[in-house]
Amino acid sequence: METELARMVRAGDERSIARGLSLVENGAREGQLLLQALRRGPAASRLLGVTGTPGSGKSTLVDRLIESSRAAGERVAVLAVDPSSPFSGGAILGDRIRMLRWHDDRGVFIRSLASRGQLGGLSAATVQCAALLEAAGFGLVIIETVGVGQSEVDIASVADATVLVLTPGQGDGVQAFKAGIMEVADVFVVNKADQPGVDRLRREIAALLSLGGYGPDDWKPPIISTVASRGDGVDRLVARLADLERHQRGKGMLAETRRRRARFEVRSLVARELDALVAELDDAALDALLRGETTAAELARTF
Amino acid sequence: METELARMVRAGDERSIARGLSLVENGAREGQLLLQALRRGPAASRLLGVTGTPGSGKSTLVDRLIESSRAAGERVAVLAVDPSSPFSGGAILGDRIRMLRWHDDRGVFIRSLASRGQLGGLSAATVQCAALLEAAGFGLVIIETVGVGQSEVDIASVADATVLVLTPGQGDGVQAFKAGIMEVADVFVVNKADQPGVDRLRREIAALLSLGGYGPDDWKPPIISTVASRGDGVDRLVARLADLERHQRGKGMLAETRRRRARFEVRSLVARELDALVAELDDAALDALLRGETTAAELARTF
Repeated sequence: METELARMVRAGDERSIARGLSLVENGAREGQLLLQALRRGPAASRLLGVTGTPGSGKSTLVDRLIESSRAAGERVAVLAVDPSSPFSGGAILGDRIRMLRWHDDRGVFIRSLASRGQLGGLSAATVQCAALLEAAGFGLVIIETVGVGQSEVDIASVADATVLVLTPGQGDGVQAFKAGIMEVADVFVVNKADQPGVDRLRREIAALLSLGGYGPDDWKPPIISTVASRGDGVDRLVARLADLERHQRGKGMLAETRRRRARFEVRSLVARELDALVAELDDAALDALLRGETTAAELARTF
Repeated sequence: METELARMVRAGDERSIARGLSLVENGAREGQLLLQALRRGPAASRLLGVTGTPGSGKSTLVDRLIESSRAAGERVAVLAVDPSSPFSGGAILGDRIRMLRWHDDRGVFIRSLASRGQLGGLSAATVQCAALLEAAGFGLVIIETVGVGQSEVDIASVADATVLVLTPGQGDGVQAFKAGIMEVADVFVVNKADQPGVDRLRREIAALLSLGGYGPDDWKPPIISTVASRGDGVDRLVARLADLERHQRGKGMLAETRRRRARFEVRSLVARELDALVAELDDAALDALLRGETTAAELARTF
């Protein structure tokens, strides 16, 4: 059923896109049906994940990527997954400022998503919002996340390409990312490369990469130094991202990424159901476990 | 069934504890039965979570807490949840050094757990290892995690008390923790308090806490400055942790924490099963989702 809203989203109408995203983000049934309608059309966005520690200059870098895509005539959407909490609430000021910056350009759409997954990483809603933006005709959709945890792992599951932004002088910054860093990043960016410690950080990343056992046909993640605030190195980053896309197309990898993304979407929804079920485990069952009258595995089997 | 191994673990035999932990960590059925046998006994450990960014000096602080407990005649076990990856593998050098330091003290047991949960946070195995150490008679069990992500949220679900270690000069360090920081920490430690930026960091934490809406009977997390490398401030931390325990006992909160821990254990096991199921979703189903022939919610309902 092609609703008026679906038609308007597909036509790129900004207010309809915003309304559609709200429906999808809230998990409303109406949002799910909208998405189903939108998925009927052919879609061809590139989904780029940009992740890194707070203060690494991710947002500035994303702004540079927007500029570069706009110069090439491409429409760009950004989903900023917001590390907000019920206490602090709302979008981070920086996002607001950024939105103002691009406010007059209809080819740029920026949205902060407050909704994280129950498990701290990306939620199904994030992936579904990206699918909506794809249907709305944005050639590039960027998901920007903060964190040294689950978000990166998730973003690698759903994005076509993942950029990990590091900065020199973060102490044992690479250590922090060790858990899964190699599996996550397609491109490493050493931002704020005008600060001391760049060579050391590059060496650390290179040392980790040397353990990766890449074959001659594998994509070996490049390490790109940038000063995003001045735009330095951004051209090189854009060029390498284009190389990566060619590599992936050449190997027919994009369909598999789409399926991984769909799998993630289903998994996130099931996990949400699961949380509700486990929350209902009664005290008697839990006390029986604690007294050794049953095992966690036995209780798990009751689901 | 009280096996010989269970008896030896309960008696505090070090090699038996190590063997039991391996069985539990591997998820072997033998480990689950061991745990069931051990849970028959009364148990009275305090489970303390210590978490924070890499380089915040968590391990040094934990060493100080060990010293303090040992001086009070208490046996202490530490589970260091290791941010290892398939690529880097194994325990971090620092843990090895620490283990050597306490090697001759039978009242201290330290173990690095390589196993993270599938979802990047704590695994059921971590909680089960803590239960084994409790049965082995350690009065204090410390779970030490690295990360700005899921680990903290998890640790707050399972620990009796959670200490969050921050350091000045981490850039927008508090921002990084915003997602859930208020729900997580019972005590904030500002470590490396001999470095510049302490007052600012304390103010930032205090500002976040001021949003928490604590009632007169609620525990309001204290902010404690330490220089763990010199031992400064550690006495104050230990005193406030004792205050917290009294507060929790007075309110009868400990039984509820134990149940939360049991719930987490079951949930982690179910999630592992779930991952296996979702991995089996076939391409045809995923492609149907991507073509808008079904919705993620419909696929989720098939589980």
